[in-house]
Amino acid sequence: MFKFSLIKKDTESSARRGELTTSHGAVQTPVFMPVGTQATVKTLSPEDLKSMGAEIILSNTYHLFLRPGHELIRDFGQLHGFMAWDRAVLTDSGGFQVFSLAELRKISEEGVTFQSPVDGGAKHLLTPEYAMEIQEALGADIIMAFDECIPFPATHDYARESVERTQRWARRCKDAKKDTGQALFGIVQGGMYPELRKQSAEGLLDIGFDGYALGGLSVGETKPVMYEMIEASAPLLPSDKPRYLMGVGTPEDLVEGVDRGIDMFDCVMPTRNARNGTFFTSFGRVVIRNAQYERDKQPIDPACGCYTCRTFTRAYIRHLFNANELLALRLGTIHNVYFYLNLMQNVRTSIEQGRFKEFKKEFLEKRETIAN
Amino acid sequence: MFKFSLIKKDTESSARRGELTTSHGAVQTPVFMPVGTQATVKTLSPEDLKSMGAEIILSNTYHLFLRPGHELIRDFGQLHGFMAWDRAVLTDSGGFQVFSLAELRKISEEGVTFQSPVDGGAKHLLTPEYAMEIQEALGADIIMAFDECIPFPATHDYARESVERTQRWARRCKDAKKDTGQALFGIVQGGMYPELRKQSAEGLLDIGFDGYALGGLSVGETKPVMYEMIEASAPLLPSDKPRYLMGVGTPEDLVEGVDRGIDMFDCVMPTRNARNGTFFTSFGRVVIRNAQYERDKQPIDPACGCYTCRTFTRAYIRHLFNANELLALRLGTIHNVYFYLNLMQNVRTSIEQGRFKEFKKEFLEKRETIAN
Repeated sequence: MFKFSLIKKDTESSARRGELTTSHGAVQTPVFMPVGTQATVKTLSPEDLKSMGAEIILSNTYHLFLRPGHELIRDFGQLHGFMAWDRAVLTDSGGFQVFSLAELRKISEEGVTFQSPVDGGAKHLLTPEYAMEIQEALGADIIMAFDECIPFPATHDYARESVERTQRWARRCKDAKKDTGQALFGIVQGGMYPELRKQSAEGLLDIGFDGYALGGLSVGETKPVMYEMIEASAPLLPSDKPRYLMGVGTPEDLVEGVDRGIDMFDCVMPTRNARNGTFFTSFGRVVIRNAQYERDKQPIDPACGCYTCRTFTRAYIRHLFNANELLALRLGTIHNVYFYLNLMQNVRTSIEQGRFKEFKKEFLEKRETIAN
Repeated sequence: MFKFSLIKKDTESSARRGELTTSHGAVQTPVFMPVGTQATVKTLSPEDLKSMGAEIILSNTYHLFLRPGHELIRDFGQLHGFMAWDRAVLTDSGGFQVFSLAELRKISEEGVTFQSPVDGGAKHLLTPEYAMEIQEALGADIIMAFDECIPFPATHDYARESVERTQRWARRCKDAKKDTGQALFGIVQGGMYPELRKQSAEGLLDIGFDGYALGGLSVGETKPVMYEMIEASAPLLPSDKPRYLMGVGTPEDLVEGVDRGIDMFDCVMPTRNARNGTFFTSFGRVVIRNAQYERDKQPIDPACGCYTCRTFTRAYIRHLFNANELLALRLGTIHNVYFYLNLMQNVRTSIEQGRFKEFKKEFLEKRETIAN
């Protein structure tokens, strides 16, 4: 079961307020999806995620295929059963990770051959058909077409060839997909060439998907270029289907993405930064190891309502990081993920109330203030 | 405020059912105290501990003195305020850790000079008086006298000298302690010499403490020797004061200790083992990385009621350990600490119901069965 309903369109921007309906509950959009690469959002339990209001998480096909294997996960009630998460899940196709392997992979029309870094260098062939089979076994509510995510920078010739191959692979994904009730999203590629982005989007529309993602962004290009690429394809996508900006980004990126009509985001930034002791707050970033926080009795963000901010001081969190205490990583992750989820809640409310542009302006201004 | 009330004495053993009254709530004994060395029980939040029924935790004076410093902690509402734990706390005296430094420390009548491994090798002098001052700043409900914990094996001459010095230090602790409302426990030493254990206990009784601990055990001696040492001193201690067996031990050790009249225990075994993937269960130990658990759909211990066992399979926990996922460490710790706390709950119930000896027999028999 999958449905996308538009609740409200902003009149001053391309921002949209919507709702995804899945077999594992509703998801309010625009939404940020915490990343649970190996069937766990690092340091967090399902209860932690629920208490923060997460309605959907992302997990990575490539990692789960290698360990513990998709057959095992299917046998344990798919991803939902295996990790005890009864809300919605999206899996990527494995493409992004496979292409990141550089010398360890080889692309052909059939698919990508790669050497596993986990099981003693065994060779695997990932094809569009196999990506569907694996994702069907994992059982996510939303699955992604197998695409090529090209490096940055890339020549126009290579980007065009790749867009065309990704288009043929998208067709094979659609043809191979069984009637599982899972939603299948296509992925717009095209490097940093607006006309290729347009070509890619139009090609995917010909095939027809349950949703459309923008891939290959936030890979080294400047922010204006990223926004230009979004603007080159998002307006072509049907307004009654969800749009997903993959692997992006900072809090500012999310707000800019919503402004340009994006409904879904995922990124490791909040979780990875938390484990380094860098926290997102309403007034900018806090690097908790800094000496200035040694005797600071305030919470990480006085404006935040997360468990960590309701319970602990900056000085205590700093102590945990300095003492290499594992609790630091979870408390920091709780804060950062809450910050992202709460930001999207505020974005949704502002769209509902017809004041998204005003919200965006205030949000960006406030974050220019440096942490005291 | 500190009070110890005996609720029931077992007629077939020295087991006792009691209650400690502290300014931070009541503590039912016999009790196991999870170890929170650096003002955190590794991986667990205060809420985790409360939801498992922990009524008291232990924290380490030595570590907190070095980082973040007892003055800072006092300024943050003492340990309770600093770590957001509003139930009871016991701190050790720092003696055990300082004596473990081997070449880095020097003993004199005044105290122990040691080099800090944290702040660039600065020299510190820990004396009985300073141990009281630090523990008063930390603000635990129960604090410990500064003692010498001798190595194993030790000669009779050295053990006797040390017992006599520890006796003089105990007097200085009692004299130095301010009227803070904290309970002060003396520590029986004496190596593996029953007559020195007796001498140590009698010396401490002359001074008079709020409770009595047995130190320097589980340091390499055999189990029968450890039990002999407990039996050499515990019966001499006043029945209306709590008895605390420091740094012990396995689940079996706890039950054997209760049998010999011990009321309080602490040990890093449940927390440390959890982080290695070794779990205590009602039928013995489970080493979760073993291949036999790869597709095992049972919880770690089907008889366990902890969050981990109510929610996740052995296969999932094993996956988290194999994938080096941080969630593994917390889920494992939740299980092991719950197992220890639940064991003590069962011990207390069995004493109340006059069937402790029967409980002990069944408990030890069941654990001889190997995990399936």
